[in-house]
Formats: sequence, C-alpha cells, structure tokens
Amino acid sequence: MARWEPGARERLVVAAVDLFTEQGYDATTVTQIAERAGVTKSTFFRYFPDKRDLLVAGQEALSRLLAEGIAAAPERATPLEAVAAGLERASSAMGPMNRELGPRLKAAIAANVELQERDALKSVGLAAAMTDALVARGVPDPLAHLAGELGVLAFKRGYAQWLEADHDAALAPYTLAALEDLRAASQSLT
Amino acid sequence: MARWEPGARERLVVAAVDLFTEQGYDATTVTQIAERAGVTKSTFFRYFPDKRDLLVAGQEALSRLLAEGIAAAPERATPLEAVAAGLERASSAMGPMNRELGPRLKAAIAANVELQERDALKSVGLAAAMTDALVARGVPDPLAHLAGELGVLAFKRGYAQWLEADHDAALAPYTLAALEDLRAASQSLT
Repeated sequence: MARWEPGARERLVVAAVDLFTEQGYDATTVTQIAERAGVTKSTFFRYFPDKRDLLVAGQEALSRLLAEGIAAAPERATPLEAVAAGLERASSAMGPMNRELGPRLKAAIAANVELQERDALKSVGLAAAMTDALVARGVPDPLAHLAGELGVLAFKRGYAQWLEADHDAALAPYTLAALEDLRAASQSLT
Repeated sequence: MARWEPGARERLVVAAVDLFTEQGYDATTVTQIAERAGVTKSTFFRYFPDKRDLLVAGQEALSRLLAEGIAAAPERATPLEAVAAGLERASSAMGPMNRELGPRLKAAIAANVELQERDALKSVGLAAAMTDALVARGVPDPLAHLAGELGVLAFKRGYAQWLEADHDAALAPYTLAALEDLRAASQSLT
C-alpha cells in the first residue's frame, strides 16, 4: 500500500459495505464508494477491478494463508491435521474489522444474486487452494479433494458461528471446532 | 413446452453453445442465438431470463431429481445410500444431448469468469437441494451437509469422467463409482 494513502483500501471496503446496506448493491456506484471513503475514483480502481470484487477482495490472501498453513504442517500430519493448520493460520488473520463487517457483508450477499455467484466461486477457489496444497504434500486424489472441501465447509461453518459470537472472540476456535464436527460426521458416514 | 414449438428449448441451448464456442460468450447476443435456433427473441425469453442462465438451465431439474431420488430411498438407507439413490435418478435423466454438449459447455465455462461464477452457484444449489432432502429424512446436521457436499463432488467428478468415455455410456455408473471412491477416502480420513 502506498505510503501517502494509509488505510485507503480498508476505508473503501467499509464505505462500500455501508452503502450496499443503506441503498442496495445495484444502486451503489464506484463514484459513491470513492466519495464516501474520501478517495478518488482512480484510487478505487488501483485497489479493485470493479465493485463486485471489492466484496470478496480477501480471497487471494485467504487462499494463500490456507495453503501456507497446510504446507507448514509437520511432515507426519494427517490430511485433516494439515487442513487444521491451514484453517488456524487463515483464521488468525481475521480480526475485529472482519468481525464488524461480517454481518453487513452477509446481508449484502444474501440480497444479490451476482454477489452470491461471486461468493460461490470464491469457495471453489479456496477449496482448490487447499486441495493443491495437500497434493503438494503427497496426499492422493480423491482424498486431497475431499479434505480440501471439508476445509472450506469448516471455514464457512465456523465463520458463520463466529459472527454470532462475542465481538472479542477469535475465529480459529470456531473453524477448528467445525472441522472436528465434520471429521466426526465423516466417521458416521461409513 | 407449447405444442406448436417442439424442441425450441433444446434448439436454443444447442445454438447458444455452438455460438459461444465459435465466437466466444461475450460476443454472442440473444438475437444471434434466437436466429440460429430459428425462433424469435421473445421465444428465447419465454425459456430463459438471460444469456447466462441458458448454460445452467438444467439446474432446477437436476436439483429436483436429486432430491426426489433421496426422498424415495428406502427408509433404512444410510445417508450415503440415499445420496446414491439421488445420483442414480439424476444421472439417468442425462442422455446423448448432454453427452454431446458437455465438452463444448465445459470449454465455454472455462473461458468465461461470469459463467464460472454462475456454475459455482449451481453447485451450491445442488448441495443445498441434497442437504435439505437428507434433513427431511431425519439426517442430523452436519452429517446431512457433509453427505450433500459429497453428493455434489461425486456428481461433478463422475460427470467429468463420463465426458471422456464412449458416447453411448450411461452416466450413472460414473457418478456412483465416484461416490464410492469418496466414501472410501472419507474412511481413510479418520
């Protein structure tokens, strides 16, 4: 981030989610978002390709953290232990701003099909990032694919529960508990 | 479907996928699709809300068949046996036209982010349909959610393998084998 514009990215995200909540996604323009954030329109486009991408801007960072956590897990970790390490690393990066914006983001997505589509593709990307990181550890297919999908399910379920929790709670215990629930459920599948 | 227009829906799908393949998704208009299919533009809009929905038009039918198959499974069937019954019913509805169009559809989706987003949301819809049908059978959460996601994975993996198979092969054996692979993998998770 440029030194002469601290926090512009975060201000844009907050302004956009506020405007989406106040007046709807479709009615909100890039110009309005930039104005509310106190930056120019061209600054907006330095950070985001378009209005829609703004809402899921964290995906690349999230994918990277999940993959790094999986790669850094001990060599003898099972696939699900490696997934847990990925969830732990990614969850730790989600702080008070994510907790604050989460419910408003959720409402904006629930009200707009285009955002639901973008959000669904985000999940596909996260699953692919985890699957690839597991394959790189030598986990065979379809086990890697399955474990990656469980990781996404755990992240989404844990995140949803976190949004209902106290404002000062950390995310990691929720995503890890969700993974453990899914592990137990997969035992009762067979 | 109106009696005076047999096959208009199928002709529109074939025309659209051909045009997407020939000239790309973005460059193709509803007018061109209707012309190629030999129908009017207003006929197009009787079948599809827009160009994008045309490519995933089968989703509602697919969701319904998956859910019906799960609901009709024997009372004592396990969650995965019920999912298998859903896959079997939905797979049986996919015939030579799906097999013929599949590879071209896949290419069109691979080349366009908007279509990837729509396709990802389709998977979310299929998983929700299966999860709901399992919950209606009394399967508890998160087991229902997990089994529904395994069902989607099995359908997608089996479908991809089917597209590589002989043209006269049936889809059901591929989706059922993929489900069995995932079941075996989930055993080695724990």
